[in-house]
Amino acid sequence: MITPLENRDALDVAGLERLIEHLLGGGVHGLFILGTTGEGPSLGYRLRNDLIGRVCRQVAGRAPVLVGITDTAFVEAVGMARAAAEHGASAVVLAPPYYMPEGQPELREYVDHLLPELPLPLYLYNMPALTKVALDLETVRWAMDQPHILGMKDSSGDLIYFNRALRMLPARPDWTLMVGPEELLGPSVLMGGHGGVSGGANLFPGLYVALYEAARRGDLARERDLQERVLEVSNRLYRVGKHPSTIIKGIKCAASCLGLCSDFMAEPFHRFRGPERQRIETAVSELAGVVKVD
Amino acid sequence: MITPLENRDALDVAGLERLIEHLLGGGVHGLFILGTTGEGPSLGYRLRNDLIGRVCRQVAGRAPVLVGITDTAFVEAVGMARAAAEHGASAVVLAPPYYMPEGQPELREYVDHLLPELPLPLYLYNMPALTKVALDLETVRWAMDQPHILGMKDSSGDLIYFNRALRMLPARPDWTLMVGPEELLGPSVLMGGHGGVSGGANLFPGLYVALYEAARRGDLARERDLQERVLEVSNRLYRVGKHPSTIIKGIKCAASCLGLCSDFMAEPFHRFRGPERQRIETAVSELAGVVKVD
Amino acid sequence: MITPLENRDALDVAGLERLIEHLLGGGVHGLFILGTTGEGPSLGYRLRNDLIGRVCRQVAGRAPVLVGITDTAFVEAVGMARAAAEHGASAVVLAPPYYMPEGQPELREYVDHLLPELPLPLYLYNMPALTKVALDLETVRWAMDQPHILGMKDSSGDLIYFNRALRMLPARPDWTLMVGPEELLGPSVLMGGHGGVSGGANLFPGLYVALYEAARRGDLARERDLQERVLEVSNRLYRVGKHPSTIIKGIKCAASCLGLCSDFMAEPFHRFRGPERQRIETAVSELAGVVKVD
Amino acid sequence: MITPLENRDALDVAGLERLIEHLLGGGVHGLFILGTTGEGPSLGYRLRNDLIGRVCRQVAGRAPVLVGITDTAFVEAVGMARAAAEHGASAVVLAPPYYMPEGQPELREYVDHLLPELPLPLYLYNMPALTKVALDLETVRWAMDQPHILGMKDSSGDLIYFNRALRMLPARPDWTLMVGPEELLGPSVLMGGHGGVSGGANLFPGLYVALYEAARRGDLARERDLQERVLEVSNRLYRVGKHPSTIIKGIKCAASCLGLCSDFMAEPFHRFRGPERQRIETAVSELAGVVKVD
Repeated sequence: MITPLENRDALDVAGLERLIEHLLGGGVHGLFILGTTGEGPSLGYRLRNDLIGRVCRQVAGRAPVLVGITDTAFVEAVGMARAAAEHGASAVVLAPPYYMPEGQPELREYVDHLLPELPLPLYLYNMPALTKVALDLETVRWAMDQPHILGMKDSSGDLIYFNRALRMLPARPDWTLMVGPEELLGPSVLMGGHGGVSGGANLFPGLYVALYEAARRGDLARERDLQERVLEVSNRLYRVGKHPSTIIKGIKCAASCLGLCSDFMAEPFHRFRGPERQRIETAVSELAGVVKVD
Repeated sequence: MITPLENRDALDVAGLERLIEHLLGGGVHGLFILGTTGEGPSLGYRLRNDLIGRVCRQVAGRAPVLVGITDTAFVEAVGMARAAAEHGASAVVLAPPYYMPEGQPELREYVDHLLPELPLPLYLYNMPALTKVALDLETVRWAMDQPHILGMKDSSGDLIYFNRALRMLPARPDWTLMVGPEELLGPSVLMGGHGGVSGGANLFPGLYVALYEAARRGDLARERDLQERVLEVSNRLYRVGKHPSTIIKGIKCAASCLGLCSDFMAEPFHRFRGPERQRIETAVSELAGVVKVD
Repeated sequence: MITPLENRDALDVAGLERLIEHLLGGGVHGLFILGTTGEGPSLGYRLRNDLIGRVCRQVAGRAPVLVGITDTAFVEAVGMARAAAEHGASAVVLAPPYYMPEGQPELREYVDHLLPELPLPLYLYNMPALTKVALDLETVRWAMDQPHILGMKDSSGDLIYFNRALRMLPARPDWTLMVGPEELLGPSVLMGGHGGVSGGANLFPGLYVALYEAARRGDLARERDLQERVLEVSNRLYRVGKHPSTIIKGIKCAASCLGLCSDFMAEPFHRFRGPERQRIETAVSELAGVVKVD
Repeated sequence: MITPLENRDALDVAGLERLIEHLLGGGVHGLFILGTTGEGPSLGYRLRNDLIGRVCRQVAGRAPVLVGITDTAFVEAVGMARAAAEHGASAVVLAPPYYMPEGQPELREYVDHLLPELPLPLYLYNMPALTKVALDLETVRWAMDQPHILGMKDSSGDLIYFNRALRMLPARPDWTLMVGPEELLGPSVLMGGHGGVSGGANLFPGLYVALYEAARRGDLARERDLQERVLEVSNRLYRVGKHPSTIIKGIKCAASCLGLCSDFMAEPFHRFRGPERQRIETAVSELAGVVKVD
């Protein structure tokens, strides 16, 4: 979930409420806040706390709320986890601390120290492009032996890795493996994956839910049709700017065009302006037919 | 400067005081706290604040104190800068926010938004291996036009870049260009650089000061001799472990062997244990002659 | 196809003949020689020529023979293409020249200069890990407008890219898109891909053909079962050594264990020895049940 | 040395002769042909052979001629080495085979197999940006124990590595360590290095010889002045195009502007055209004063 912002240190409260209802109305099975698309690392701790509270109150048990606590500082990650528990979130999500890269043994020891401090169960988040360090398969296997770790979101984009992780599930049949990039949602579910954490679902939740369901029931023709539409969303909205931030900028800008919430982005980034916004406006309007699912 | 720690959330206060006196006694021209070697990103904000206060009080104007404020969250970076100003630090030091990589225009706009919020002058910190984003030369040139930016520490290890930056100094003769890797301290000063921010100076400050001075006055034979000793320190202390954290682990372990302070490291890292500590102990004792400067 | 070698400059002729019959007997739809797994770049030109001739004579039209001509030198690539045509090969396969990385416009101009010199149709080969340069989607789109380019083998391992390329096929419905990594063969064919170029098919061709066919007809259960077996082959045979060459070493060693051909590898690599060979022997014997397809 | 070309498969013979006289007249201490700047990997073997013969005949013992034999195929590298010996070259130069990256033990074994086949002594060439594999310091140390290896050209741009290699020279005092990037020629010689292999010396050999000599005799003021001029050449000529080939394009274009030889480049590259050539023309004329050394 994106984080609707009024300015760098204040939520767009009305937008946040609209967005949550939009998502739940679209049938999503859970919310993940303060992740990459949620600009987690760009937000001050006071605001993060405020967000967790508002989301939990608004959702009010209608769907699980997962809270990103990834942080370079151990004590701040624990602080966010406690806030999540106090507000009634369902679980926390953790990627490797992302300043100096850890070796895998350091990473396992880090998680091992963290687990007893967490008041909520944990999902791991594999995001090597941004954390520099992948959770290698040996580390994933180790994590499956930790009862308080419930699963993993894999944003590596590497379906060989994802498939290898799936093959380890007999060791921990209750684990959940979700895929990050929505461009791989269909194929990953066909492989046996359990779902996706799709940024585009902020905009068109029904499309992503339908794609998930088609893949889940093995309807190949429908899966291919819907995955192609998701690719179209990605092609039109995520590649307008030049820098890696273009994806979040595109989603927030489109959310604003759809009347969901403000497109303000916290530094070090900023919203799309002038010609880029215009391209998103056009795309949103032209995508109307593409994203419509019966 | 390393950060002496009692545990993940408490300073080793006595060690900190000893370390500061050791550094000042060795003749260093300033202290940089909460940088990479200072484990800045691994420390909670309360502890960072505590550290700034104690360092400033202990130094008491005997040398400038520079405070790292690099943060993925704008508001937290500003918070640290305000703390630094309140405690009487001299300047703050900033590397690019290090989660999602910025394009150069985004980076310049970020710094541009930040400057008016900072109560202290700013040094930039180029550390692409850890922040993913280099300050490219065009951005450095732009920064030279900002009166509140006083210089840069370049930890890229790329002396071509460093030399190109030096050639731009006529546009801003009062700027300071310092080098990060101590293995390049001598050559960079011979090129015209203004000094170094050397992790090994925590241990043997006199050696690094002598190397700087020899290079500054163009004494090539002395520079080569001292730089060779610095390489020997690096070879013996910084390559004992396998992961990038090995440098900080080596410095903290050696500081502990020298009786300066505790070697505790905050997660996601940990101090050297058993055989690694033994190798550092041996190295420290064998380096005694090498690091002695008359 | 691997290249059976007697020594660095001579083919294992008997092994080559056995291998070709093994492959054709297993039902493969074509042979690709002098690719990465075929050690193309490690072989002298005389030997490459010899190989092309022998393969074409042995196959004798029973399946198409595709010949890798990737070379840093334009004139040598053309020379290999002419040899391929003279010996009766079906097509040539080209990855970007792999010493100094080209920009995409340079790459397109290079292919544009090459096409009129080629006496055979061309398949492109996207292999960024080894050529440093990917064929970006704009270049693929350009290539679809060249009538003498018939398709692409994509070894990027990136199914997002592969899927995007598939979406461009309406512009050139006769194009063929094949996937490199056999760990992705099933999913890529489910997505609409046209097949794979699987190194493991040297050993167990029937398994890969069956996987292709299951995916082609949309038999999801069978596809998942067979893909899992292919992953098991990959896990047991391709990860025994430490360096990237481990995959080819594993295939050649297993081919030798199966009595197909010699395991000699041309420099800069060498065959598995002692304990590594033993691990492959054990794996081959334990895989017997896994690779058996009814 | 660049390779003057009439077209992709023919030398610009008159230009080649002019260029050689220009270089020798400028005082260079040796010629290195068929390296990166010499487009070695882009040239057919017949043409490479022709080049070696013509250069050796024209130089006629006035300076050592070193011949690049780097090749992905062992037998072709040996073939080039034999051609070099027959034509009377002084030594051969070898970087790691650059298709599939070798592990260091594989690399050492490769060189170990190659040495007995070489009729001339060998220099190693560390060029990780283009070969993917660095010669790590352990491998360099091993190479110092091989009597037929005489030294190394280091194009890594990493002066820490270079300095560490220099510190190992006591094990082999007759070894030669040269630096690749001309932007580091002065500093590397001040550190104790033995010289440089500077592409810009094709254009202004006297400047690079003077810089080398100033650094060699420890004349810091002169070294800094001349190194600054070399940076100016680099800034004006090597950054006109967008792709990595821009350096060679710039040198060849400038050589053509100076009337030395043709600027034809073999595929996959091509010479600068229109506006880029104009920028080089302007730069060459404006550099006239900069490159003049008394």
